[in-house]
Amino acid sequence: MPRYALTIEYDGGPFVGWQRQANGMSAQQRLEEAAFAVDGTPRVVHGAGRTDAGVHAKGQVAHVDLAREWRVDRLRDALNAHLRPDPIAVLAARAVGEDFEARFSAKARHYRYLIDNRRAPPALAAGRVWHVKRGLDDAAMHLAAQALIGKFDFTTFRAAECQAKSPIRTLDRLDVRRSGDRIEILASAPSFLHRQVRSLVGSLAHVGSGRWRVEDLREALDARDRARCGLVAPAHGLYLVAVDY
Amino acid sequence: MPRYALTIEYDGGPFVGWQRQANGMSAQQRLEEAAFAVDGTPRVVHGAGRTDAGVHAKGQVAHVDLAREWRVDRLRDALNAHLRPDPIAVLAARAVGEDFEARFSAKARHYRYLIDNRRAPPALAAGRVWHVKRGLDDAAMHLAAQALIGKFDFTTFRAAECQAKSPIRTLDRLDVRRSGDRIEILASAPSFLHRQVRSLVGSLAHVGSGRWRVEDLREALDARDRARCGLVAPAHGLYLVAVDY
Repeated sequence: MPRYALTIEYDGGPFVGWQRQANGMSAQQRLEEAAFAVDGTPRVVHGAGRTDAGVHAKGQVAHVDLAREWRVDRLRDALNAHLRPDPIAVLAARAVGEDFEARFSAKARHYRYLIDNRRAPPALAAGRVWHVKRGLDDAAMHLAAQALIGKFDFTTFRAAECQAKSPIRTLDRLDVRRSGDRIEILASAPSFLHRQVRSLVGSLAHVGSGRWRVEDLREALDARDRARCGLVAPAHGLYLVAVDY
Repeated sequence: MPRYALTIEYDGGPFVGWQRQANGMSAQQRLEEAAFAVDGTPRVVHGAGRTDAGVHAKGQVAHVDLAREWRVDRLRDALNAHLRPDPIAVLAARAVGEDFEARFSAKARHYRYLIDNRRAPPALAAGRVWHVKRGLDDAAMHLAAQALIGKFDFTTFRAAECQAKSPIRTLDRLDVRRSGDRIEILASAPSFLHRQVRSLVGSLAHVGSGRWRVEDLREALDARDRARCGLVAPAHGLYLVAVDY
């Protein structure tokens, strides 16, 4: 059966998250409905990352097996026709081998987190950024973040309900950059724990506001204690931007 | 009476435009309500540019006279408290002299127009960009645009209902740039005619899609004939980004 990898964009706002759930519309469910509509058989659409409710995607990747061969541009357009009018779209489709697994074949995941750091509430970016009124020292945040690059036990920055067998992860990138009022945090790793990026961003905000010293972030990591996490940044500032294979 | 200049951001989607109208909520009306709430006297808020329904602002400027002196950061915060939960916010307030007029003192206005040029509909940028599926040649668009820089009779690119006395305007900048699927058009002038930017962008899209030759844009300008305008690009891709004084 031919397998296709899909690159997917969605606004996390109206979805209960990536994963199919009983309590509301998920991104996965909408894609499975669209795949059923074009293919005629119920299909599971397997995603690379299980984004939480409210988290956005600019480059989620998923795979699906279909009954027949498709021209990939036609498949993309046919799926999009069935996804309307919900804010989810297939950016690209490509044919992949049967050994391709969106989740398990992934070599790296890239997330972006956006903060609007200003007094005025975001009017144009409402629901797309975390609004932090208190001035944040982005240079201190970036400096603190660099102490977390490498392979560590990230228990401190892991949700209580995280189902991963091991809390050990390798963080390849955690960059903090400012452009005017907008602070952008870029995080890359082979894989992340549940709520790891939002936990890291929340704790970085403590460094930025001066509540924590730069050293406190690394000390929180070393404590391997969830109670030492500063706070969990809200979902609506987070974007899954790309998955590498 | 102390006069204040306000820098304002809004999502054009829910508004009938900048100007107060009987048929719905305008940005001006919401600001006048907020100014009344903080100042206690009905005030007119005078804007630099009368954006149409659906047009966004990242840097609209307006002036208002208030009964008493304000610390400008307190004024900004107080107005924002009364603007919630609508998608409009005061980014900054500053004290100005009685000779400052948001509209008449302006030396230049800067607009940005965003196009998502791809097959997939915009999921995250829905209502924020013009979605053009057909591939656009941005280099041809930029080249054609440069023939419109200078002082001309812009009758071709002016709304039928435009109330300006003269169709002569000086266009200082009309740049077309692409970054991936996103095309950004930057337009700067001391002032614009009604729907001039959207008319220019719509005609540039004709050049980009190959329907018009590069020379056709300048020929349309020279015709000074509204019927020669290619099309008017939709409001929701347009942003008033800044006003210079």
